Amino acid sequence: MERELTELKKRLATVSDLQRASAVLNWDQQTYMPPRGATARAEQLATLDKLAHELFTADGIGALLNDLQDDAAKLWYDSDEASLIRVTARDYEKAKRVPPALIEEISRTSSLALEVWTKARADSDFKAFQPYLEKILDLEIQLANCLGYEERIYDALLDQYEPEMTTAQVQAIFDDLKKELVPFVRAIAQRVDRVDGDCLHREYDEQKQWDFGIEVIRRLGFDFEGGRQDKSVHPFTTGFGLGDTRITTRVNRNYLPSMLFGTVHECGHALYDMGYRPELDRTPIEGGASSGAHESQSRLWENVVGRSRSFWKHWFPRLREVFPTSLADQDAESFYRAVNKVQPSLIRVEADEVTYSLHIMLRFEIENGLVERKLSVADVPAAWNAKMKEYLGIVPPNDALGCLQDIHWSNGYIGYFATYSLGSMFAVQLWDRAVRDVPTLPAQIEHGEFGDLLNWLRANVHTHGRKFTLDELSRRVTGEPLQPQSYIRYLKQKYGEIYGV
Amino acid sequence: MERELTELKKRLATVSDLQRASAVLNWDQQTYMPPRGATARAEQLATLDKLAHELFTADGIGALLNDLQDDAAKLWYDSDEASLIRVTARDYEKAKRVPPALIEEISRTSSLALEVWTKARADSDFKAFQPYLEKILDLEIQLANCLGYEERIYDALLDQYEPEMTTAQVQAIFDDLKKELVPFVRAIAQRVDRVDGDCLHREYDEQKQWDFGIEVIRRLGFDFEGGRQDKSVHPFTTGFGLGDTRITTRVNRNYLPSMLFGTVHECGHALYDMGYRPELDRTPIEGGASSGAHESQSRLWENVVGRSRSFWKHWFPRLREVFPTSLADQDAESFYRAVNKVQPSLIRVEADEVTYSLHIMLRFEIENGLVERKLSVADVPAAWNAKMKEYLGIVPPNDALGCLQDIHWSNGYIGYFATYSLGSMFAVQLWDRAVRDVPTLPAQIEHGEFGDLLNWLRANVHTHGRKFTLDELSRRVTGEPLQPQSYIRYLKQKYGEIYGV
Repeated sequence: MERELTELKKRLATVSDLQRASAVLNWDQQTYMPPRGATARAEQLATLDKLAHELFTADGIGALLNDLQDDAAKLWYDSDEASLIRVTARDYEKAKRVPPALIEEISRTSSLALEVWTKARADSDFKAFQPYLEKILDLEIQLANCLGYEERIYDALLDQYEPEMTTAQVQAIFDDLKKELVPFVRAIAQRVDRVDGDCLHREYDEQKQWDFGIEVIRRLGFDFEGGRQDKSVHPFTTGFGLGDTRITTRVNRNYLPSMLFGTVHECGHALYDMGYRPELDRTPIEGGASSGAHESQSRLWENVVGRSRSFWKHWFPRLREVFPTSLADQDAESFYRAVNKVQPSLIRVEADEVTYSLHIMLRFEIENGLVERKLSVADVPAAWNAKMKEYLGIVPPNDALGCLQDIHWSNGYIGYFATYSLGSMFAVQLWDRAVRDVPTLPAQIEHGEFGDLLNWLRANVHTHGRKFTLDELSRRVTGEPLQPQSYIRYLKQKYGEIYGV
Repeated sequence: MERELTELKKRLATVSDLQRASAVLNWDQQTYMPPRGATARAEQLATLDKLAHELFTADGIGALLNDLQDDAAKLWYDSDEASLIRVTARDYEKAKRVPPALIEEISRTSSLALEVWTKARADSDFKAFQPYLEKILDLEIQLANCLGYEERIYDALLDQYEPEMTTAQVQAIFDDLKKELVPFVRAIAQRVDRVDGDCLHREYDEQKQWDFGIEVIRRLGFDFEGGRQDKSVHPFTTGFGLGDTRITTRVNRNYLPSMLFGTVHECGHALYDMGYRPELDRTPIEGGASSGAHESQSRLWENVVGRSRSFWKHWFPRLREVFPTSLADQDAESFYRAVNKVQPSLIRVEADEVTYSLHIMLRFEIENGLVERKLSVADVPAAWNAKMKEYLGIVPPNDALGCLQDIHWSNGYIGYFATYSLGSMFAVQLWDRAVRDVPTLPAQIEHGEFGDLLNWLRANVHTHGRKFTLDELSRRVTGEPLQPQSYIRYLKQKYGEIYGV
């Protein structure tokens, strides 16, 4: 077994190197690449992604996995070795179904589409993006048909981001959430004046915002010797191995939360990527369990921690030092309320915690409509606006603030959005468990101490890398499956208190 | 032939994509990568470089080249097709001699060595770099032995940067140069007070320097839609295809020429990389003819143009607008003289044109000593300092200002340095020819117009990409072989006038 495992790891390390190289090229495309570099970059990415796919699906890897199956069955399920063989075999089986030419074409198209989307969003010109979205949709449907599915075509795409989760399961969770959230949002809407968020829209010098964000995430545990932050149109986290995790943010002079919570959100992803055990490096079980698990980390730090009263008891005085004029009339409590103002809004990444999942459901439904060919790409803006009206009672004045706002579709990420809500839910389950284990966590946060929380997350979540599915991870850490009840309880308690409902 | 050529180009495009991906990762390593990213990056680069080598040396490419040889012989030597087949066959024959494992090891080692060199240079600690330089030297000697050579081992390494040029040819040129330059430097040394360079060492705000540099190169023709400038420890130019050329510079608050001439130098490289015909893209004949040809472009813009009286007649008034205090006592003529002050100095990239080649000869001799095992790595600092004393009459106070100053060895570039002098020589040959063709060039430069010069270079040099050797290019453009006489005449005329010798 030893020999086969060594040989397998060697081959997987090469695949990992190519995937990381591809990630560097993607990062560069979104941060520094000059506009005319897009065509060549698309070819480079297509070549890298195709080669990585070819090397990963080579018969040699299949043979090694086959040889190792029996040995793996005798090992502890959670061990590095059993997990590596199990997860790699799962990935391999799926990858084998997809021809390299399709991988190449998806890579090329999404790289080109990213540039078109960036410009289309700036110009609020959906028509410019439409042919690219149509091509991406065609390719994603082809991909789903290659991957296969039992019930719904969306299952195949969702499974890429949330292994072994089905569309029906997500739908059931969303039904539960909707049942509770819609009346709750209505009740809050009656008392919308109880929170004043105006202070967030004042003048905030960009460089000072940037510096404050850096100060915060340094304290949260972001290691600047092994990572960095840059600017991009849409914030994201990526990584090229232990020791090199990159986050991006954007800074809006007249809306503080963009940078503030964007930076903390991406820092949450980064801390996850910085925390897997070095033994898992350059294998398919490095990184995070799933997209949902990843979002649990980003949304835990952004919301459960970053929008908590304790957090601002510590950070508000420092923030007011930086912006004495714009925050002159605020205190920690009023600022805490401001950053938790519930209000139907247009931009998902800036939505409050209560309405956030409604943005996700909208996308989930539109994506399902698209891949089932029940909704045409040309009709996306109208469908988007109709759903915004239905769920949130507002209609975007243009597509830049509507269906063009998110990078995901341009990047070929159809099937991803649901994981934001799954992550938000799991974040609360994790937090509840962490506080049971370390009851002083809220008090620590009030004193600007985040080390115990990070260490708890490292020991319980980060260390495992990508060994488990989200459900497996949930059962191991919290003792229960993924469920929306904790999240609903958390929202009702926090926002019930703020709004007195 | 059509079918084989299409298939060959398709395979070569994949190799080009991998090489460009490797270049992106190198660029990132030298500009933005956090320190702890170095280990993973070395593996990524090793994998990419090895794969590119394997794909390029695959038997399929050999067979295609073989099939195409006869057809190519019937074509015009200068045609795209004949050149592609000829140059690719030359590269292929050489690459075939080198095992992929050696390529991988050179890539990994030089990526790691780059980080060690960066720190060793900052700390002026040669001992820290020594084991890496020893390993690189071993690998380069192995490489030279694989590549083969007729006369001297250095030939094999030089040939990578300057195809078909031999050590003996370079030595003969250097002997000619030395014979003329050494007495000329001595004559100037008697009159060193005739030029006052003190104004260059005053206070120059970094951001204002940066902005001025950008303004200059934009006017020279650098296309910021298809390129960008960043900062790095050692300035360099790289590119990832037409539409994405990157340059870097460094800014010294108390020494203006670092940024000024560094930026113009790299811009010269970039204009070359931006100028080959699109038909050559993603093939081995994209880019520049050779390292010497490349340096002819950088040094033409940096020195023949950028340190000319005409250039400063136009730019000095603007520069004084930017730095009114530090340049209060200067005019275009005094500034022209200041940037042409001849003075033995420690740092090659900041050396004046007259002493510059002496820095190169020193490196050429040390490299020859190393690869012939006549000089041990441990003795490099002593040998460096002794030669500095002999050629320039000064001794570096530490190794950071001595043998640790250049990035090349850490990057595995042994055999490169001579091309700087070859390029300086060829720059003057090109300039002489350009002025014969377009006699108004100096007058245009005096009016801040650079379009005709750039167009002349595009039409005569850039357009050919990597079709020709430096000597072939020289004969086609100037009607004569590469020779040092024009350069010597240029130096004597320019500096004879400034110093009255």
